[in-house]
Amino acid sequence: MKILIKDVLLDGEKRDIFVDDGLITEISPCCSRQAEKVIDGRGKAALPSLINGHTHAAMTLFRGYADDMPLKSWLEDKIWVLESKLTEEDVYLGAKLACLEMIKNGVTVFNDMYWHWEATSRAVAEMKIRGFISAVFIDMFDENKGREQIARNLELYELSKKYEPYVTFTFGPHALYTVSRESLEWMRDFSKEKDILIHMHLAETIDESHFAQEKYGMTPVEFLNSIGLFSERYIGCHGCMLDDGDTNILREHNARLVHVPVSNLKLSVGRVFPHFLMQESGIPYCFGTDGCASNNHLDVLETMKFASLLAKFFTHNPTMLPARETFDMATRTAAGIFRLGAWSIAQGNSPDIILVDLKRPEFVPNFDIYSDMVYAANGSAVDTVICMGEVVMENRAVPGEDEIMARASEAAHSLVKR
Amino acid sequence: MKILIKDVLLDGEKRDIFVDDGLITEISPCCSRQAEKVIDGRGKAALPSLINGHTHAAMTLFRGYADDMPLKSWLEDKIWVLESKLTEEDVYLGAKLACLEMIKNGVTVFNDMYWHWEATSRAVAEMKIRGFISAVFIDMFDENKGREQIARNLELYELSKKYEPYVTFTFGPHALYTVSRESLEWMRDFSKEKDILIHMHLAETIDESHFAQEKYGMTPVEFLNSIGLFSERYIGCHGCMLDDGDTNILREHNARLVHVPVSNLKLSVGRVFPHFLMQESGIPYCFGTDGCASNNHLDVLETMKFASLLAKFFTHNPTMLPARETFDMATRTAAGIFRLGAWSIAQGNSPDIILVDLKRPEFVPNFDIYSDMVYAANGSAVDTVICMGEVVMENRAVPGEDEIMARASEAAHSLVKR
Repeated sequence: MKILIKDVLLDGEKRDIFVDDGLITEISPCCSRQAEKVIDGRGKAALPSLINGHTHAAMTLFRGYADDMPLKSWLEDKIWVLESKLTEEDVYLGAKLACLEMIKNGVTVFNDMYWHWEATSRAVAEMKIRGFISAVFIDMFDENKGREQIARNLELYELSKKYEPYVTFTFGPHALYTVSRESLEWMRDFSKEKDILIHMHLAETIDESHFAQEKYGMTPVEFLNSIGLFSERYIGCHGCMLDDGDTNILREHNARLVHVPVSNLKLSVGRVFPHFLMQESGIPYCFGTDGCASNNHLDVLETMKFASLLAKFFTHNPTMLPARETFDMATRTAAGIFRLGAWSIAQGNSPDIILVDLKRPEFVPNFDIYSDMVYAANGSAVDTVICMGEVVMENRAVPGEDEIMARASEAAHSLVKR
Repeated sequence: MKILIKDVLLDGEKRDIFVDDGLITEISPCCSRQAEKVIDGRGKAALPSLINGHTHAAMTLFRGYADDMPLKSWLEDKIWVLESKLTEEDVYLGAKLACLEMIKNGVTVFNDMYWHWEATSRAVAEMKIRGFISAVFIDMFDENKGREQIARNLELYELSKKYEPYVTFTFGPHALYTVSRESLEWMRDFSKEKDILIHMHLAETIDESHFAQEKYGMTPVEFLNSIGLFSERYIGCHGCMLDDGDTNILREHNARLVHVPVSNLKLSVGRVFPHFLMQESGIPYCFGTDGCASNNHLDVLETMKFASLLAKFFTHNPTMLPARETFDMATRTAAGIFRLGAWSIAQGNSPDIILVDLKRPEFVPNFDIYSDMVYAANGSAVDTVICMGEVVMENRAVPGEDEIMARASEAAHSLVKR
């Protein structure tokens, strides 16, 4: 589709932007090309879309069902009980709600790990955004379960071609305390052979560190390094417990990380992702919301504000993680991690694009669009979303949204009664 | 004005709410009274409005002008330079923008401390919300300045009657490192005589603690107690450095506090307000956004999420400051601090009322409205705002908003060039 965005603010200048099947072919003060779709950009700013580095999409169904509980009973008495009852259809409906919510917040790319892989993939393809979708891989150190999971992942890898270009298959080894060394080694080899990303919880909790120490006599990072799991395909999420020995290893192998600050605070994991170490080591990282049971909103702008402010607070240094850097990490850096190409609005690039409504109090006086995005705005400022050359939201309207919300709500309420 | 809200969700039940000049006179499944204004409440929830316990309204003009800087040069090279050039008209325009922004976020009451008292008061009265407005009181320990400030405050106290019922005059002694003991003692006596609230920065930074120790040989709280400043009229803001000796004193004298978490993180003051001590001592506190130079958004819902999550994280306890308690503190507790009466939606009460739009992804599946408000929603979910019996926002539209934004923007951009 050929899209012409007229009179939009781009880096402070009024511009026309011409997008041809997702590729930006012209940026000029006045573009006269013919488009199938013309968007009035007046009073709006054009920015690259946001990328959500870690979530469990269908957990939207659990939003507000169980908060403010001790971690163990929250998981055992609430979340796992619901998850054991989840059907393929539930996950499909929850994932559609998540995609809707992310579109409303200017997010067009997300990195997912959950049950019922195909249900999430179907939702992503229908919503026409980009999902890096993994099936939760848990074998609990049981050889038979490991073999089953491997077989299932091979099937899903083949199946994923059906959902291109919306869905990219990834591996989702849950964590080192739920996945055997042998399964991890298999994923290591297959991911290398087929160039598949590996999405894993890493160094999230002190219990995980204790587990690694007891079972392997190493930190989580040392153990995973000992089996050669790290590469530029490895995406470790949370990372709260990382120390400088760990970051040296991760840097050496070019691994990538995702910072999930809101979840870390809400679940009170004890430590916050050490931005300072990342800055020292230069490890690329981006931001994730986590699922809606532990956040409870898939708003990457909100997550960016938390991340930036925590980085300042914990270093006693208000100059840490400034607005522009924070915004770039959620867009350009994240796009690098997910191999999406140059994620800025420039001729010859193909980023997804959001238009942000500047006629809102939080954008007045608009001295600095990046400061306003990170510190003042939230996802509700996003007016229009273009993903892979298609308009998926315009004037905050997403096709079918009322039905998506109604069906997800019904599924969630029926689930808790089942 | 008589307002009838039809078919709105109240505590999970569909209800009609009749409001007569701000007083709730009927709540029933079907109200047949005649109203001048009927509001369709379908798909919305009715809640008491939010209260912003600490801000500097007109600092909206500085939003995004100077972020990510060391505190000293941020203040000396940026903020104070702009403040020295501020005119009465600038403050009026900035305060109007702040009122607009707060209305958009469901805030109808705010506690302010700033320059050009009357400009802010004029803005509040025009926007028809409730401001507790103080003039910044700074004498820098200079007797003549102290006398001037006292005379000025006496004038403003008289003048404030002109702006009733929108404006309530309060004292705004800036902090103990900028105000002399004699001036504080005068405010103590006059506030007791006339029952005036005292709004003050308290125990915000380590520098303030050092100052108190050097000048008075006491903690800030010990010093202020030694001159008898604390009572139920005293509202101390920030409180990051409070210890249990301090909280015993504050509790004994029934003083009140305001937690300002976003600002404390952004300015990296070193410590976070100790919720745990407040819980132990039972000191009532509510939440404040601070001004837009150090937050940069007057969204109390966002501030509540920060406060609740920080309380959990810093106590390693995810059950701390649960959603309902957090919401109640920003509404009922805050209303108690500002003496506004029973701030819940019940017959015979006169709270300001907000209607929240539930047809948004972040309110699906809506298991718990308080969880959704604190952890999932932000201020943009507020659809309608009723303050003192008048509708000040309906369907997110506020009369005159485009002009308010345009004029504030113009003032801010002209200010930095002056």
